[in-house]
Amino acid sequence: MLLKGNAIRDIILDEVKGDVSKLEVKPSLVIMQIGEDPASHVYIEQKRKMAAKVGFLFEHIKYDESVTEEEIITTITKLNEDKLVTAILVQMPIHKKYDSIKIQNAISPIKDVDGLTFYNIGALTNNKSYAAPCTALGVVELLKRNNISVSGKRVVIVGRSNLVGRPLSVILTNLDATVTLCHSKTSDLSSVTREADILIVAIGKAKFITSDMVKDGAVVIDVGINRVDEKLVGDVDFDSVQDKCSNISPVPGGVGPMTIAMLAKNVYNLYLQVSVKNVRKDK
Amino acid sequence: MLLKGNAIRDIILDEVKGDVSKLEVKPSLVIMQIGEDPASHVYIEQKRKMAAKVGFLFEHIKYDESVTEEEIITTITKLNEDKLVTAILVQMPIHKKYDSIKIQNAISPIKDVDGLTFYNIGALTNNKSYAAPCTALGVVELLKRNNISVSGKRVVIVGRSNLVGRPLSVILTNLDATVTLCHSKTSDLSSVTREADILIVAIGKAKFITSDMVKDGAVVIDVGINRVDEKLVGDVDFDSVQDKCSNISPVPGGVGPMTIAMLAKNVYNLYLQVSVKNVRKDK
Repeated sequence: MLLKGNAIRDIILDEVKGDVSKLEVKPSLVIMQIGEDPASHVYIEQKRKMAAKVGFLFEHIKYDESVTEEEIITTITKLNEDKLVTAILVQMPIHKKYDSIKIQNAISPIKDVDGLTFYNIGALTNNKSYAAPCTALGVVELLKRNNISVSGKRVVIVGRSNLVGRPLSVILTNLDATVTLCHSKTSDLSSVTREADILIVAIGKAKFITSDMVKDGAVVIDVGINRVDEKLVGDVDFDSVQDKCSNISPVPGGVGPMTIAMLAKNVYNLYLQVSVKNVRKDK
Repeated sequence: MLLKGNAIRDIILDEVKGDVSKLEVKPSLVIMQIGEDPASHVYIEQKRKMAAKVGFLFEHIKYDESVTEEEIITTITKLNEDKLVTAILVQMPIHKKYDSIKIQNAISPIKDVDGLTFYNIGALTNNKSYAAPCTALGVVELLKRNNISVSGKRVVIVGRSNLVGRPLSVILTNLDATVTLCHSKTSDLSSVTREADILIVAIGKAKFITSDMVKDGAVVIDVGINRVDEKLVGDVDFDSVQDKCSNISPVPGGVGPMTIAMLAKNVYNLYLQVSVKNVRKDK
């Protein structure tokens, strides 16, 4: 069975749109772009469309690479203090001369829609983060909306990135999965991936996971998006793996659309959490 | 081979003592105790002795359970601002009426010697925490000082606590181990633990891990300390497991002494990091 994300994304965006329509002051998403990474243009355009669709206010702040780290952080500080700003996102990647971790951590945790501040990463362990990384949440939501339970299951994640593998391992452990986190230094990777009831792959290597690495009947989630000969392919060798597993997410059209849906949910959730805080303050 | 912690603890405390003796202003450790948990008295006394041994200043602030959460947090805020205070530790457990997570997070990350603030938990993922939980560090140091490499090894951790299992999974992933985190909801636990090259157990159940759960030649680290018939025993059934594994840490005298050694190192490391920050500010 194919785990498609497009239809679920549309449902989630409709849900958020319905919630937003009831609000007098609309949630607002601010995206900061530094430099001219070509993929970033595409991703920011997707986010702009999503915002328009669900009814968020949207602001795109664009710097060229002459901007200093100090100037970026000054802008973030102003956005942190601006009551009309709900969510702040610095589009990655940015040039190596900037300390991206320092820049991410300048965002107030309650506006950190990517869930990448140290505060939110740590809070996630206690199920108390304001937001978690959208792609990780997208994987979990894709499983959930397909009624695939993770509790008690053996989940193997390949790839230990801060955006996907690491937060996923925390969220899935919170949900009672038994998680193994693999990476480039894992020895005998196939023997580990074959233990997975649910195999999640996020390493950015085209068609890396072949059928001999997958247990019969496993659920396979492919987070990779690689461009090969002008075609998008995942980290999983779809053609060979699809007959072996019970469920598999396609690329494109699997996890990708879920990411943008979870971004919409994150913005709305931040908005709600700020509202709750303000109500508490008023008391 | 027995992985004993006592001798290594003494070496580490001597190292810290030597470093501290060169300092004009001594590092200071403040322990806050709330209530009368009997085990806490023992642990605080151990910490007091450690501080005396290595030359730290030591302050023990004691509240009975009539103190409010607000008063505790006010005290922590004052300690955060006090330049003579290096490290702050709230002795756990505390009464359920207090929000222990909120109290922990009131500590400034740079004085958070237990590494339990959300900031430090999150920063650990990026190898940028000011401090990490002492017991987790103690396990890693016990392996290191016995020349047991973790890189590429399959490590299975049983127990997902914030003090041990969770931070250990992060630190060992940083060190290139392939980590599986097990817990009460793991199905067929024995089949998972038998995959471990290095098995680390921290669940607080006496003699829970038996020889059939251990791979031949594995390294076994027992973090448990359980009192059974007035005797201290670990989470591992030492008598049956010791013949099957290559190395095993005894209880008592294994990880326990390492914890206090790593506390000493954490206090000293916080002191150094503040000094570096002050030098930067002076520039």
